[in-house]
Amino acid sequence: MRIANLAGRLTVLVEGRAIDVHTASRGAFSADPQAVYARWAEFRTWAAGADLAGGRPVDVAELGAPAPSPRQIFAIGLNYREHVSEAGFTTPEGMPPVFTKYATALTGPVTEVRLPQGGHTDWEAELVAVIGHKAHNVSEADAWSHVAGLTVGQDISERVLQMEGPAPQFSLGKSYPGFAPTGPWLVTPDEFDDPDDLELTCSVNGEVVQHGHTRQMIFSVPALVAKLSGILPLLPGDVIFTGTPAGVGLGRTPQRWLAPGDELLSSVVGIGELRQRCAD
Amino acid sequence: MRIANLAGRLTVLVEGRAIDVHTASRGAFSADPQAVYARWAEFRTWAAGADLAGGRPVDVAELGAPAPSPRQIFAIGLNYREHVSEAGFTTPEGMPPVFTKYATALTGPVTEVRLPQGGHTDWEAELVAVIGHKAHNVSEADAWSHVAGLTVGQDISERVLQMEGPAPQFSLGKSYPGFAPTGPWLVTPDEFDDPDDLELTCSVNGEVVQHGHTRQMIFSVPALVAKLSGILPLLPGDVIFTGTPAGVGLGRTPQRWLAPGDELLSSVVGIGELRQRCAD
Repeated sequence: MRIANLAGRLTVLVEGRAIDVHTASRGAFSADPQAVYARWAEFRTWAAGADLAGGRPVDVAELGAPAPSPRQIFAIGLNYREHVSEAGFTTPEGMPPVFTKYATALTGPVTEVRLPQGGHTDWEAELVAVIGHKAHNVSEADAWSHVAGLTVGQDISERVLQMEGPAPQFSLGKSYPGFAPTGPWLVTPDEFDDPDDLELTCSVNGEVVQHGHTRQMIFSVPALVAKLSGILPLLPGDVIFTGTPAGVGLGRTPQRWLAPGDELLSSVVGIGELRQRCAD
Repeated sequence: MRIANLAGRLTVLVEGRAIDVHTASRGAFSADPQAVYARWAEFRTWAAGADLAGGRPVDVAELGAPAPSPRQIFAIGLNYREHVSEAGFTTPEGMPPVFTKYATALTGPVTEVRLPQGGHTDWEAELVAVIGHKAHNVSEADAWSHVAGLTVGQDISERVLQMEGPAPQFSLGKSYPGFAPTGPWLVTPDEFDDPDDLELTCSVNGEVVQHGHTRQMIFSVPALVAKLSGILPLLPGDVIFTGTPAGVGLGRTPQRWLAPGDELLSSVVGIGELRQRCAD
């Protein structure tokens, strides 16, 4: 199933048309996406038996973040070996570095991103997982059943702020407004032949800069859910940015940063794509 | 004015009695604290003119976090010079290190805290600020008008997880369930002679381990609001843990950690105190 946030309302996508869940369920489910994640099992049961016809064609520019109001946003660092090397770190073993992207950075799939003055703004295409059922101390084997679905994310990063000061400033340097586009929609895990092996691509002005497969992740989606949930509860609607493959601007010689006018395209095969235009 | 979260409902404290805002306003304000922060100016105007009589005596053990559902939680590292030294870092200049404490760690003022097995759990008493009016690109001079009030916080920290791996794990190591007690209530800035100079104390089993004054902070509350809001919008109900003075267990010789049965008391003069009992 594909779930989209159309102008703040939760919709199911069927053959390219968006069916409003609140209307189709005659008010049994709220229009608010976060409220639907809080009742994820009920929602899936209802949707499986519902007559999901009608709806209206979707313009991706109208879509918001599929999970727009998470209580918690987890962002995973250093989760692909070649990216660990290009970033100059050692490979994580027990637990990857985890930081947050603050909620005010979240946007939908098609946006304009303002580049901070004096900054070095970089791209990081990522697979993003959204929690359905609350997860606390779950095993890797059970982890997928706690995931509502997968979407595409861009972990846009301003490297000057990120790297300055007495300790790296991951959370803040990656949380300027609009620095966390997600979408275009959420795809439930059952839609994939193998949800543990998805193909990611990032391009800038049509040139491919990142290309990877999620089977290369050091910590898979179920491993991340198991490890995070071993420390704290993951709540319905929580968002996990799962890390980026090699090819970021920071790791290039010479280094390369986003500039006004650049078109940033991030995609995962089987989900869809994000499109950001960079502005001053 | 003093604001408390009594069993999930926003109350005003008058002479030790809690007056339910939803009831006293005849439903004009929601019982939900987060919904009241979203209408902070209206709430303050109403409360200033309301007949706040009645109410019931408060048992602090019934109180929840004064701001229980923030969209964003900011935690400031290295904000007192002697703590910078004991932690072995260099002094921050433009911006202190900022991490998050995940929302599931938030609790009220009187709790039992479970110590993670195999961990080294440490204390960090802090002044905590809660945002009232949205703040984006505000000046230091205007910053206090965006702060709803101040409360006490404990930035409880598990140092093994925090320090292991290829990069420090601040957010996760400080976010086990119950690792962010706050309270006992919110005190509005106008209640203090000088809200920029408050006295903090932390004790373990009656022994004072931390004692400081917020005038010693490298970045004051208004400086933090101005600096953070220069990067992203601070929303009503957002929480800022402002950093801890010297005296944490990590900086002692020999190092000292919390143990089952320990009583942790954290207080700010003019606000009140938090009491945590440590358990296995």
